[in-house]
Amino acid sequence: MSGIGERAEVVRAEDVPEIGVGMLGYAFMGKAHSNAFRKINYITWPPPLRPRLVAIAGRDQEAVSAAADRYGYERWTTDWHDLVTDERVGLFDNGGPNALHAEPTIAAAEAGKHVVCEKPLGRTADESYEIWQRVAATGVKHLCAFNYRFVPASRLAREMIDAGELGEIRHFRARYLQDWGDDPTLDTWRFHADEAGSGALGDLGAHVVDLARFLVGEISSVSGLVKTFLPGREVDDAIEAAVEFDGGAVGTIEATRLALGRRNAFQWEINGTKGSLAFDMERLNEIEVFRADGDRARGFKTVLVSEVDHPFIEWWWPPGHIIGWGETFVHELHHLLRAIADDGEVAPYGATFEDGYRAAEVCDAIVRSSGSGAREQIDYRSL
Amino acid sequence: MSGIGERAEVVRAEDVPEIGVGMLGYAFMGKAHSNAFRKINYITWPPPLRPRLVAIAGRDQEAVSAAADRYGYERWTTDWHDLVTDERVGLFDNGGPNALHAEPTIAAAEAGKHVVCEKPLGRTADESYEIWQRVAATGVKHLCAFNYRFVPASRLAREMIDAGELGEIRHFRARYLQDWGDDPTLDTWRFHADEAGSGALGDLGAHVVDLARFLVGEISSVSGLVKTFLPGREVDDAIEAAVEFDGGAVGTIEATRLALGRRNAFQWEINGTKGSLAFDMERLNEIEVFRADGDRARGFKTVLVSEVDHPFIEWWWPPGHIIGWGETFVHELHHLLRAIADDGEVAPYGATFEDGYRAAEVCDAIVRSSGSGAREQIDYRSL
Amino acid sequence: MSGIGERAEVVRAEDVPEIGVGMLGYAFMGKAHSNAFRKINYITWPPPLRPRLVAIAGRDQEAVSAAADRYGYERWTTDWHDLVTDERVGLFDNGGPNALHAEPTIAAAEAGKHVVCEKPLGRTADESYEIWQRVAATGVKHLCAFNYRFVPASRLAREMIDAGELGEIRHFRARYLQDWGDDPTLDTWRFHADEAGSGALGDLGAHVVDLARFLVGEISSVSGLVKTFLPGREVDDAIEAAVEFDGGAVGTIEATRLALGRRNAFQWEINGTKGSLAFDMERLNEIEVFRADGDRARGFKTVLVSEVDHPFIEWWWPPGHIIGWGETFVHELHHLLRAIADDGEVAPYGATFEDGYRAAEVCDAIVRSSGSGAREQIDYRSL
Amino acid sequence: MSGIGERAEVVRAEDVPEIGVGMLGYAFMGKAHSNAFRKINYITWPPPLRPRLVAIAGRDQEAVSAAADRYGYERWTTDWHDLVTDERVGLFDNGGPNALHAEPTIAAAEAGKHVVCEKPLGRTADESYEIWQRVAATGVKHLCAFNYRFVPASRLAREMIDAGELGEIRHFRARYLQDWGDDPTLDTWRFHADEAGSGALGDLGAHVVDLARFLVGEISSVSGLVKTFLPGREVDDAIEAAVEFDGGAVGTIEATRLALGRRNAFQWEINGTKGSLAFDMERLNEIEVFRADGDRARGFKTVLVSEVDHPFIEWWWPPGHIIGWGETFVHELHHLLRAIADDGEVAPYGATFEDGYRAAEVCDAIVRSSGSGAREQIDYRSL
Repeated sequence: MSGIGERAEVVRAEDVPEIGVGMLGYAFMGKAHSNAFRKINYITWPPPLRPRLVAIAGRDQEAVSAAADRYGYERWTTDWHDLVTDERVGLFDNGGPNALHAEPTIAAAEAGKHVVCEKPLGRTADESYEIWQRVAATGVKHLCAFNYRFVPASRLAREMIDAGELGEIRHFRARYLQDWGDDPTLDTWRFHADEAGSGALGDLGAHVVDLARFLVGEISSVSGLVKTFLPGREVDDAIEAAVEFDGGAVGTIEATRLALGRRNAFQWEINGTKGSLAFDMERLNEIEVFRADGDRARGFKTVLVSEVDHPFIEWWWPPGHIIGWGETFVHELHHLLRAIADDGEVAPYGATFEDGYRAAEVCDAIVRSSGSGAREQIDYRSL
Repeated sequence: MSGIGERAEVVRAEDVPEIGVGMLGYAFMGKAHSNAFRKINYITWPPPLRPRLVAIAGRDQEAVSAAADRYGYERWTTDWHDLVTDERVGLFDNGGPNALHAEPTIAAAEAGKHVVCEKPLGRTADESYEIWQRVAATGVKHLCAFNYRFVPASRLAREMIDAGELGEIRHFRARYLQDWGDDPTLDTWRFHADEAGSGALGDLGAHVVDLARFLVGEISSVSGLVKTFLPGREVDDAIEAAVEFDGGAVGTIEATRLALGRRNAFQWEINGTKGSLAFDMERLNEIEVFRADGDRARGFKTVLVSEVDHPFIEWWWPPGHIIGWGETFVHELHHLLRAIADDGEVAPYGATFEDGYRAAEVCDAIVRSSGSGAREQIDYRSL
Repeated sequence: MSGIGERAEVVRAEDVPEIGVGMLGYAFMGKAHSNAFRKINYITWPPPLRPRLVAIAGRDQEAVSAAADRYGYERWTTDWHDLVTDERVGLFDNGGPNALHAEPTIAAAEAGKHVVCEKPLGRTADESYEIWQRVAATGVKHLCAFNYRFVPASRLAREMIDAGELGEIRHFRARYLQDWGDDPTLDTWRFHADEAGSGALGDLGAHVVDLARFLVGEISSVSGLVKTFLPGREVDDAIEAAVEFDGGAVGTIEATRLALGRRNAFQWEINGTKGSLAFDMERLNEIEVFRADGDRARGFKTVLVSEVDHPFIEWWWPPGHIIGWGETFVHELHHLLRAIADDGEVAPYGATFEDGYRAAEVCDAIVRSSGSGAREQIDYRSL
Repeated sequence: MSGIGERAEVVRAEDVPEIGVGMLGYAFMGKAHSNAFRKINYITWPPPLRPRLVAIAGRDQEAVSAAADRYGYERWTTDWHDLVTDERVGLFDNGGPNALHAEPTIAAAEAGKHVVCEKPLGRTADESYEIWQRVAATGVKHLCAFNYRFVPASRLAREMIDAGELGEIRHFRARYLQDWGDDPTLDTWRFHADEAGSGALGDLGAHVVDLARFLVGEISSVSGLVKTFLPGREVDDAIEAAVEFDGGAVGTIEATRLALGRRNAFQWEINGTKGSLAFDMERLNEIEVFRADGDRARGFKTVLVSEVDHPFIEWWWPPGHIIGWGETFVHELHHLLRAIADDGEVAPYGATFEDGYRAAEVCDAIVRSSGSGAREQIDYRSL
């Protein structure tokens, strides 16, 4: 391997305080978060806090005990309340199904634990508001796991926009395209209305809405529709919407689980008065950057984000040695640990429960618009 | 140069009847169409008819006479009526500003000339309907110059869809992105409401609507908005819409003249139950094809359309030697000449004035939806 | 169509002198050149001279007479000497097989006609030198049809390098990949040693060598090999070489007719001390540009060359409306006509017969290196 | 996050035997390997053996003790002999500078430890042969860390070629392009002849040679050159070579640290009689696949390798959720642990020390060819 050296760090692990993690869920998100907590202990050096995997909870005894063994949790339980009452748990991580977001998260916060909850925060705006309101009242740190804010390209985009490098934003167009939904024999909680709340809307569309808000600002109206293609499916397969932003930008938002050939294609483009950005999650190490800078050689640059001097990148490899999707959780949970350690803010780079609630308001508005046929204005509630 | 030989053709030019062309307009479209007529005479061999450039009309005497001289028209005029009364003119080609589409086109058709008219057909659905109705009554051939149907990739897509290779279509998403509108000092008839009727809507959005109809079928509803960003501009800069199709597909349609860095990026993607297609006009020789065929190596193919055995390609160069944007007009006008020569149909591969009218109905609905905030159903009028 | 207006030109066709063209060959190159001469008459306005298609020569009477009819030559002949003796011919264009390059081209020049000859100039360096020497002695203008110098991206690259925008060049790597040679049943003069001289070497490799010389300068040594894969084939299918340039750059050169899936993939990359360029002929409207300019957003720009203000582009369409492969001949022959009209130089942007000869010296050296196993230094002869 | 469920595994960690790791080196490769050992413990489930990080050795006391603390090694030492004599160490991992490959690796093997050594195995073919010979004599498992065999795309390519899906291979062309060498102020052991042995040759070129051998077979001859551009640099900056393979394929090999804008662009292409493959390490999750299968839609497929059912992928995330460069070490070291656990073979998917030696023979031949100017045949020594 080629490359250049690392800076030696003189902080010792023992100098860094531990934080006990209680994890709810052992499947896809359980694995992604557990991996992140383990890596934070040695990749992000020195870490703000050292995650200690105290306990993991799940419904199936055999599966949860196996997950505890595999990921190194000190114990397991089939009752999430055990996590809430465990004094060694300082951070409660909710990676369970959507229906299980509200009660355990609120309980954990009310027990004084910091909380991270997978998206969508709740199954509706009302449920999400309730979670936010109850948790905010406790004073703990809260993060809604919109991990795509922690793709390096997203952070770079946000920094460029904040610095005015794109000028005023005129357009945001984004689509989150997957195709695993095209299997009538597949069964998962994600297809059950009571457990998931919605389909592509909350699963993929919420990511699009959050990134829109993260980069462009509040959405003021939506005109759209939700659509279920497969007979008997309880939740939506796709959403389509035209949107307006408070700042004057306009665009489109789409999400579907039926775009054959697209596996994880969260693609977005932003056009401003000074430049444009474009991105595709299937190439998450890259971002396309156009600057209206008068260069005779005019075009979009394909920027390998590992090139760029900004947070996250220094932890990894030399430029051009790309990172994987799993690393976004390392970045995200590190950010939360930093906020906890320093008693700092999760916002604006991390999504708080307020962000989780606001995304849910937009998602609800898309559902309303689908039913009413009307352009729906969005009113955000305050605490 | 490398490559393989050509088939010798034994048809002689003198065996092919002439058709006299009367051209209205000498600017962008005048050049594109004149170039096409000249090339049809020797590239598409044998041509169905041999275009003879009889006369060209335009407002500015110096400019129109210079254009006649340059492109080889036998005479010029500042009065389009001269084209209508010229017995040598068998085909009237209207490449003038939108406000000048209706009257000359109808007059020419009523004088027995076949007619081609640039898009949008009229400035509104009503005007477009009037043109269609009046021209259809004369029995001449009519073609609305949606030239992007004649990009080889579009034709291939249509043939694949007609053959069922994509299965049932679930999604159509398209955006036509340009950026030349971002110049407050620029003045052109395209920015004047009376001459153009609309901005990005009729100029770019109409192309999107026509291609949507060409590939996926009738649009049943739109929910969207039109937006003007530059102060003082009389026409829209951008449109955004969520759409439904009669066949059940859903998607989005966008058009803008303010997407910095995008020059002629008419990008579309179609997802069906058996595969997907994706396209970008800035790479008009390519189409991305995904087939759900079970191949372990799963992904979108980048197909150089010059590879494919289908109409148009044989006229040009060996595979891999790409064609230009200007060639779409050669294909389109050749198609019209074939219909004239054989007394055949312009539809379904060519856009008739009915197609021009139907696109206008959708465009009008987007404007209505923008005003009303409501999802607008589209009712198409018959003759 | 959208776009912006054209500048009115007030030059009249009658003000531009004619030049009579005598064409040898009616197949692939005959078509490409004839098309270019016709387009120069109205696309490049005002043209330096107006090509008049006087006569075309070819071996097969039926085919050559059909070509004359199709492309509009005033007469045809099966004896190329007729072109040489025709006083109306001011420009002799040799698009015939390689074995027919030397004698007719020399004869035409000695009869006082300006000459263009397809590449490779001769079948060997000796033959090429003879052609150059004999033609140069006559004082006529001579152009060896390395048309890829007239791809807009090539010209832009040359201008950038000349302006020092890339700094000193360190690397040139290029490969010309096609796959039509993978057909044992195919027969063409290109597979016959006596008619073609070589296979991929002279057909594709010569293009690579010329572009290397055009952009980076003289090649000083080659270490390589030629290879024939198909049994019974008289000429090489592929070449591979490591090369050194006078200026210190090093790199590789490849050409093959057996790269399945590559149709016309002439791909090259240049690395200098200030930046890099990369190109693929299958996307001939684009060039990748990297500038080491310190921008935090670091990467290669995909430049649509129709963006760039430089020769050729103004003749065509608005930015983003791409041109085709055939247009390179319009640019090339226009350049020659300009040199003839102004009694100017074909060099450095056009390839002269000296360039044709020099490319042949490099090609010969690759053959020698293949046989000897040695790195071959290249000595260029002078007149 | 969306995606589908995981298979529950019932193997317990305690059922899997441990293996003690002794690591030499704490910089770039020390980090990459340490990370891999840690992840093997929970990502690849169940692991063949559970790595236990026993000790790490390095020259600088402060740095090595910090690395031990960070990555969780039980102890550290500034004397690598301590690793060799430590009975708890079952696997010796040499990630030190090239000059430190031979002695410690041989000593560890002779002490009965399995060994992994970073590439290039030795600084010359002689040194590499010595290492191979001495280590092979001990009977331990040995792996030369050509980690790019463990990019999923490489493994897929190998499997496709083995299965005959590409037919006979005609061409291999590869270049490994980086640009970090373009900094005259930078100092690292990689620029010192005694420590590194060579520059781009052993660092990057060796990777190219190994992958060529892995995919296409033995290289029979090279004609090439090595080049140093920066004044005062002791090692080469770049290599260029034309190559022949035993099986009849021909191609080129390049490596450079001075290709501005290319960060980790190990790009290769293979053309066979039935299809082609192309790859770029900067997009290591993708491979381009062309099959000459007669499909009318002909072209290269962009395959997201996370699509493909083959080793490694199941450990990670759902299709489309890409992996990072660091994961290649997880795959590689897991492969070695499997061979150790099962007393199986490291070859053919993993590179043995014989492979390390053979790559060195080719690298030496390039150096010889550069000096002699001759095509160098390669003779491989046996044990």
